[in-house]
Amino acid sequence: MHRILIEPIIRAALLEDLGRAGDITTDAIVGEDTQAEALMVTRQDGVLSGMEAGLMAFELLDPSVQIERVCRDGDRIERGQTVARINGRARALLAAERTALNFTCRMSGVASATRLLADAVGNHKAKIVCTRKTTPGLRILEKEAVRDGGGANHRFGLDDAMLIKDNHVAIAGGVGAALDRARAQAGHLVKIELEVDTLEQLAEALEHGADAVLLDNMDPDTLRHAVDLVKGRAITEASGRITRETVPAIAAAGVDLISSGWITHSAPILDLGLDIDA
Amino acid sequence: MHRILIEPIIRAALLEDLGRAGDITTDAIVGEDTQAEALMVTRQDGVLSGMEAGLMAFELLDPSVQIERVCRDGDRIERGQTVARINGRARALLAAERTALNFTCRMSGVASATRLLADAVGNHKAKIVCTRKTTPGLRILEKEAVRDGGGANHRFGLDDAMLIKDNHVAIAGGVGAALDRARAQAGHLVKIELEVDTLEQLAEALEHGADAVLLDNMDPDTLRHAVDLVKGRAITEASGRITRETVPAIAAAGVDLISSGWITHSAPILDLGLDIDA
Amino acid sequence: MHRILIEPIIRAALLEDLGRAGDITTDAIVGEDTQAEALMVTRQDGVLSGMEAGLMAFELLDPSVQIERVCRDGDRIERGQTVARINGRARALLAAERTALNFTCRMSGVASATRLLADAVGNHKAKIVCTRKTTPGLRILEKEAVRDGGGANHRFGLDDAMLIKDNHVAIAGGVGAALDRARAQAGHLVKIELEVDTLEQLAEALEHGADAVLLDNMDPDTLRHAVDLVKGRAITEASGRITRETVPAIAAAGVDLISSGWITHSAPILDLGLDIDA
Amino acid sequence: MHRILIEPIIRAALLEDLGRAGDITTDAIVGEDTQAEALMVTRQDGVLSGMEAGLMAFELLDPSVQIERVCRDGDRIERGQTVARINGRARALLAAERTALNFTCRMSGVASATRLLADAVGNHKAKIVCTRKTTPGLRILEKEAVRDGGGANHRFGLDDAMLIKDNHVAIAGGVGAALDRARAQAGHLVKIELEVDTLEQLAEALEHGADAVLLDNMDPDTLRHAVDLVKGRAITEASGRITRETVPAIAAAGVDLISSGWITHSAPILDLGLDIDA
Amino acid sequence: MHRILIEPIIRAALLEDLGRAGDITTDAIVGEDTQAEALMVTRQDGVLSGMEAGLMAFELLDPSVQIERVCRDGDRIERGQTVARINGRARALLAAERTALNFTCRMSGVASATRLLADAVGNHKAKIVCTRKTTPGLRILEKEAVRDGGGANHRFGLDDAMLIKDNHVAIAGGVGAALDRARAQAGHLVKIELEVDTLEQLAEALEHGADAVLLDNMDPDTLRHAVDLVKGRAITEASGRITRETVPAIAAAGVDLISSGWITHSAPILDLGLDIDA
Amino acid sequence: MHRILIEPIIRAALLEDLGRAGDITTDAIVGEDTQAEALMVTRQDGVLSGMEAGLMAFELLDPSVQIERVCRDGDRIERGQTVARINGRARALLAAERTALNFTCRMSGVASATRLLADAVGNHKAKIVCTRKTTPGLRILEKEAVRDGGGANHRFGLDDAMLIKDNHVAIAGGVGAALDRARAQAGHLVKIELEVDTLEQLAEALEHGADAVLLDNMDPDTLRHAVDLVKGRAITEASGRITRETVPAIAAAGVDLISSGWITHSAPILDLGLDIDA
Repeated sequence: MHRILIEPIIRAALLEDLGRAGDITTDAIVGEDTQAEALMVTRQDGVLSGMEAGLMAFELLDPSVQIERVCRDGDRIERGQTVARINGRARALLAAERTALNFTCRMSGVASATRLLADAVGNHKAKIVCTRKTTPGLRILEKEAVRDGGGANHRFGLDDAMLIKDNHVAIAGGVGAALDRARAQAGHLVKIELEVDTLEQLAEALEHGADAVLLDNMDPDTLRHAVDLVKGRAITEASGRITRETVPAIAAAGVDLISSGWITHSAPILDLGLDIDA
Repeated sequence: MHRILIEPIIRAALLEDLGRAGDITTDAIVGEDTQAEALMVTRQDGVLSGMEAGLMAFELLDPSVQIERVCRDGDRIERGQTVARINGRARALLAAERTALNFTCRMSGVASATRLLADAVGNHKAKIVCTRKTTPGLRILEKEAVRDGGGANHRFGLDDAMLIKDNHVAIAGGVGAALDRARAQAGHLVKIELEVDTLEQLAEALEHGADAVLLDNMDPDTLRHAVDLVKGRAITEASGRITRETVPAIAAAGVDLISSGWITHSAPILDLGLDIDA
Repeated sequence: MHRILIEPIIRAALLEDLGRAGDITTDAIVGEDTQAEALMVTRQDGVLSGMEAGLMAFELLDPSVQIERVCRDGDRIERGQTVARINGRARALLAAERTALNFTCRMSGVASATRLLADAVGNHKAKIVCTRKTTPGLRILEKEAVRDGGGANHRFGLDDAMLIKDNHVAIAGGVGAALDRARAQAGHLVKIELEVDTLEQLAEALEHGADAVLLDNMDPDTLRHAVDLVKGRAITEASGRITRETVPAIAAAGVDLISSGWITHSAPILDLGLDIDA
Repeated sequence: MHRILIEPIIRAALLEDLGRAGDITTDAIVGEDTQAEALMVTRQDGVLSGMEAGLMAFELLDPSVQIERVCRDGDRIERGQTVARINGRARALLAAERTALNFTCRMSGVASATRLLADAVGNHKAKIVCTRKTTPGLRILEKEAVRDGGGANHRFGLDDAMLIKDNHVAIAGGVGAALDRARAQAGHLVKIELEVDTLEQLAEALEHGADAVLLDNMDPDTLRHAVDLVKGRAITEASGRITRETVPAIAAAGVDLISSGWITHSAPILDLGLDIDA
Repeated sequence: MHRILIEPIIRAALLEDLGRAGDITTDAIVGEDTQAEALMVTRQDGVLSGMEAGLMAFELLDPSVQIERVCRDGDRIERGQTVARINGRARALLAAERTALNFTCRMSGVASATRLLADAVGNHKAKIVCTRKTTPGLRILEKEAVRDGGGANHRFGLDDAMLIKDNHVAIAGGVGAALDRARAQAGHLVKIELEVDTLEQLAEALEHGADAVLLDNMDPDTLRHAVDLVKGRAITEASGRITRETVPAIAAAGVDLISSGWITHSAPILDLGLDIDA
Repeated sequence: MHRILIEPIIRAALLEDLGRAGDITTDAIVGEDTQAEALMVTRQDGVLSGMEAGLMAFELLDPSVQIERVCRDGDRIERGQTVARINGRARALLAAERTALNFTCRMSGVASATRLLADAVGNHKAKIVCTRKTTPGLRILEKEAVRDGGGANHRFGLDDAMLIKDNHVAIAGGVGAALDRARAQAGHLVKIELEVDTLEQLAEALEHGADAVLLDNMDPDTLRHAVDLVKGRAITEASGRITRETVPAIAAAGVDLISSGWITHSAPILDLGLDIDA
C-alpha cells in the first residue's frame, strides 16, 4: 500500500501517545545519544500484519533508524520468532514502542483470525471476506490484514459498490423495485449486491439481475438450495453466525464467499513484543 | 467529554465510510425527503458506552435529526433493550448507520469487558485499570468506556505521568538510579510508577520513593508479600495474565489496582443494531 | 450530496480568497450592519450545477443568511434567469461573491458541456460519461455536474473499479494475461474494464471475461464491428476525438457509453453573475 | 515557488485519486519491484506550465524516483516534444500518472491561453493580467501559469490590494466617497483600484487619487479617450470581451493592462501524455 | 474580522489546553448541569482587544452560552470594568476560562502598547504601525489589536507588498538596481518600500521611484532632513529605537509612519480576569 | 523534544508569513541559485532558547541547508555572540529569516526572564515554575524555554494533573469537599494541588491530603507560617506579585516553588538578528 495513505494514521497515533510533553519518562532517564537495538518478537503463533505500519512509527520519530525485516506482512509466524530488527536512538525506540506494537498486534490479530476461518474452509472454493464493521479510522489497514490472512475484501465503503439491505428493500417496496432503482443509477462499473433472507427473495433478485446476493443467516441446507437456485448467475455470499465451527458446513454448501464481521470487530490481538537492548 | 474532542474522530470515520461518492445505494433507492425512525437496540447483555459518539454520526449528517436517549453511557443494558430513538432523513440515518454502530458496539464491548473484570473483583478494594494498549486514534473514547464499565484510567499517554519500565531500569543501571533520574526531572505534579519483577526490586523502589509500583506477572502469593512489603507507602498495581478467572485471587492479595490490556485490545464488541422504520 | 463532503472544499476556497486580512475593500467601504440582497443570475443559456456549492460560501461567511432557491442544480436555465436570491449582511455577500460564482460558473460549465454532448446522442442509447481528467480537488463536484448535465459517472478514482490500460497490458504481456491477473485480485464487487485498440484485442478481452471494454480511438465503422463482436457480453465504451460533431455517428454505432475528458478538463464556464442591491 | 506552498495541493489531489484502496488495477497486474521509464510528452504546441507541480506527484509516491527535466515551466513547446523523463517504480509511475497530467495539462492550458493573448498585444505596452476567476484551490498554480505564459498577476485575493467595484460605489454613494473611505482604511502599502463604466466616473476617480482604474467594457475609442484623460496619473486596465480578436485594438488604445478571466476559467487544457516503458 | 478566519486559531488553543482528557479538575468537582455566570473584568487601565476571540472559546465549548457584551474591542477600559457577561454551563466556563483570557489579555496588551505610542505622537500626523515581528500563529489577531490600539498595519506577510531590505540591496548591488528589479516583477497593485540607512540611499531610492522609504535608525534631525528630501514623493516610515520617550521627537520630524516591533513582540499583557458565580 | 511535535507549528508559521505568493521581494531581486551564509547573532545578553525551532524554518524551506550550531538551547549567551551558521539558498534564508527569528527571539525572551527570576532565588531551594498563561499555540515551546531558563514546568494543560481553584472550592462548598470529590475521580497517577488564600484553608487542605498547595498572594511572613504548617506534607507553591524584587524574600520563606505567569505572558523578547552574506 502506498505510504502516503498510511503515514497520516501512524503520525496521528504517535501524537495521540506523545501528547504535549512527549515521553517524559524516557527523556528523564535515557541520554539523547544512547543507541539501542530492538527486536520485534512474536509471543504467539499466527499471521503477521501491520508490521510495516508499526515500523513506520519508528521511522517517523527517528528518520535515521535502521530496520531489518526478517518476516513480511502476510507471513505465518511462530511464537518466539523475531520479525524485525530496529536500530536507532534509544529515546525514539522507547517512545514509539507502544504505538508500533498497537498497530502490529491489532493487525496481526485480524490476519490471524481471518487465517483461522480461511483454514476452516478446507478445499472448498469459498473465500473469507470482511465487512464494513471495521475499527473507525483503521479501515485500510484492516482490509489489508484480511488479505494478509488469506481473505478477500468486501466493499471499502459506501461508495464503491451497491449493497441493498433489508431497509432499502422495505423502502423501495420489494426486491425487484430496489434492484431496478439501483441499476438505473449505478455507474457502468458499479456492481450491485442484494441481501436476501428467503429463497423467494433470492429468485426475485436473480430475475432482476443482481450481480451478487448476500444470503443472510441461512442454515447450510438452505444455502445449498440457494446455490442451486443461483446456478452461477450471481456471486453468492453467506453471512451470519460465522465461526470456525460453522464455516466448514457453510463452505460445503458451495457459496463463493463467507463474510465475517468478527475478524475485524472482535478478533483478539496477536501478542508481539519489543525486546530492547540498549 | 467535550464534544470538541470527539467530533473530529466521528467526522473522520464518516468520511472514511462515505468515500468520494457517498452512500450510492441509499441515494439511488431512497428519496431525498423520506423520513424515518431508527431504534438503536442492543442484542446482548452488557454495559452501554460510545452511544453519544455514535449518535454524533447522525447529527453530523443531518443536523436537524431528533434524538431521544432512553439509556445513557455507563448503563447496564439487557438484550432487546432500545437505547435511543433517532428521527430524521432516511438517507442520513442509513448512511450513518454503520459508523454509529461501529463506535457504539466497540465502546460497549470495552465497557462490558471492564465490567466483567470489575465484577470479578468482588468486595475487594482493587480497581480495574486500563493500559496504553488502546486502538490507535480512539484512546479517549476507550478510556471513557473503561470508566463506563466501572474501571479507572491509567496514563492517557507518555506525557502525563512517568512509568519506568524494565528497559529504563536496564539503561539507568538499576531501580534506584532510574527513580532518582526520573525524580530529578519530574514536574511537581508528576507521579512516578515503576515496574518491578521481584521483591528485591520492590524494596529498592520503595526506598527511592516510587509513588506507585507495577507488580508484573507475580502470582497471588508473591503479590500478597509485595503488598505487605509496601505497607501503603505506594500504590500497588498488579498486571500480567489478568482474566476473569485470575482476578479474584489477585484482588484478594490486596493490591490497589489490576491492569488489563485485554479490555481495550481484545474485547469483543457488544452487538447493537439499528431497527429502521421508514 | 452530503454537506460534510463538500463543506471542506468551499471553506478552503473561501480561505484562499480571504487570505489573512479578508476583504479589505468591503470592510473599508461597507458598514458592518448593512444588509443587502443578491440575485444570482445567469448570463448564458445552459444547465445549472454547483449552485448548492456556491451558496454554501455565503452560509459559511454569514450563517444567518436567507436563501431562496429559484432553480435547482440540474435545471436547464436561460440567459437572464434568476437562480437564487440571497439576503444577508452586505459584507458577507460581497466577500463570498467571487468564491460562490467560481464554483457555480465552473460546474454549470461542466454540466452544460455534458448536456451538449448528451443532446447530440439523440435517440441512441449511449450515455455520455466522464473520465478521471478532472480538476484536482474538485472531482466530486465535477462528477455531480456531469450527472446534472445528463451524463453518467465513470470511476471516481483508482480504487473503485479496475481499468486496464495499454501500459498494463504491455507489462502483463497481453490482454488475456492482464485480465487474468486482475480477476485474481479483484474483490467480488469490483468490475474490470479493459482498453483495446484493435478488434483482435477485443476478442481476447471478451474471451477472458472483461466486464467492459474501452474502444479507444476507433472510427464509427470499427466501433460498429466491435459492438457486433461484443454481442452484449460486455459494456462498450467509445473514447477519443469525442466532440459534438462526432458523437452522433459514434452513438449510432451502438456503443453503450461515450466518454469525454473535454467535459471536465476543457469545458468553458457558464457565465453567471451576482446582482447586489444594498 | 516554494515547495511548501504546493505540496499540500498535490498531496490532496493524489489522495483524491487513490481513495482508500489505491490503484487496484496496477497493484494487481504490476509487480512491486518492476521499474519503468516514463516520458512526459506534449501532444500540442503551447507553453509548458505546472510540470514541476505534476512531477511532485511522482516524487510523493516514490521518493526515490529519478527525474530529468528536458524543458522548464515557461518554455514554449512543440507537439511531440519530451518535456521530462521519469524513472522509478512502475507502480508509482502508473498510480501518479493521471494526477501529474491533470496538473500539467491544466496549467499548460492556462499558460498557452495567456501566451495567445500576450502575442496578440504585439508591440504595444499592454500586459495581459489575470483575475480572481480562478479554479478554487489552484489559484497559486494558475497565477504562476499566467506568468509562465507571459502575463502578469492581478490581486492574489481579497486582502492584498483594494479593488472597488460597482457595488461598493453604489453602497458608498459615489466614486469619490468610495475612494475616500478606502484610502482612510488602507495600509500605506495597499494600492487602490476602482472600476469605472464611464469617463465621468473616471474623472472623479482620478480626482480622488485612484492608483489604478479598471475600464470596464469600453470600446477601443472610449478606451483611448480614457487613456488620454488619465495622462499617466493612474494605471489603466481594460476588461470585458477580451479575446484574441479584440486584444490588438484594445492594446492599441494605450492601456497598461488587459485583464482576462477566460485564461483561467475557460482555457482548454494543453494535451500532454505519458509514454511509459516498463 | 470573519469568524471563519479566527475560529481555527481558538479551536486549536482550546485543544492545546484540554489535551486528551479535558478539564479533569472541573469534571470531578462540578456537576454536568451546574450553570454559572462569569464576568470578564479588567484589572488594569488600557485598550480592549481580542475579547471577541476570547469569547469564542466559550462558544466553542458550549454553543448554548449566552453572552452580553458590555464593551467592544477597541474601547478604552478602566480597571475594575466588566467587559462581558457570560452565562452557561459551569463546566464549559471553567474549562474555557484560561484560553479565553490568554487571547484577550495578550491582544489587549498589544492594543494598549500601541495606544501608548499613538498617544505619544500628539498632534503630529504620524501613525504607529506594526511589523512582521508578531507571535507565530497569531498574526491576524495582533494586526487587529494594533488597529484597536489606534495604530495601522504594515504588511501582513511576505507576499502583499515588497519591502527591500539591506540584504536585498547588497545582493542586487545597490539601491537603484534593487528597485529596478523589484519594479520589473511587481504586479500593478504591489507597492514597493525600501529600507535606507543614509540620505544618499534615500536620494537614490526616490530617483528610482520607491513608493515608500523605511528610514532605519535615524535620529530626529536626520529624519527631518530625510522628510525634506522626500518632499511628499514617497511615504516615510521611521523605525528603530521606538519608545514612548522617543516617539514625540520622531513624530515631530514629520514622518508619515513610525513602526514598532515592540508593540507585538514584547508588549506585556493587559490583566483581565474572570469572576465566576456558580 | 521530538521534531514531530514542533514541525507543524513551524510549518504553520512559515505559511502564515509566505501567504499565497511567497516572498515576492526576494524572488524579484535574488537569483534562484544564489547561495548565502547567515549568522544568527544575539544582540543582548540572555539565555538561548527556541533556536532549534527557528532553524527548522530554514530546513523546511530548503532541505539541503547546512547548519552549524555554535550554541545550544539553554546556553547563556552574550551580546554579539554567533549562535548558529546557516548556509543555503539565499532565497530560502531570506524568506525564512523573520519566522526563524520570531521563534528564537520569543523563546529566548522566555528563557531569559525565567533565568532572571531563578537567579534571584539565590541559594534557596525554590524553583521558578510557569503557569498555563502561555501563548496560544506555542505552549510546548514555552514550557521548554522555561526549562532552558532554569525553571521547571507546571501542568501542560487541564488534563495532566488537578489544580483546584477558588471557583471549584466555592462550587464544592469548601476545601475539604472539593478535595474529596477530586480524589474520588483522580487516576492513581494524578496529583492534586489546591489553591488556598488563608492558613485555615491550608490546614483543611492538608487534612484532606492535597499533594500540593498553591499559596496565593501571601506575603513572606504568611508564607513562612504556611511552610511551617505544611511540615513537608505537601509541596508548597507561592504565586502572585512575583518579580525579580519579591523573589528573594519569597524564596527565603522556604517554599518549594514560585510560579510566575509573567515569564510566559509578558517577557520581552531577547533580540537576535541574522547577518546574511550572499
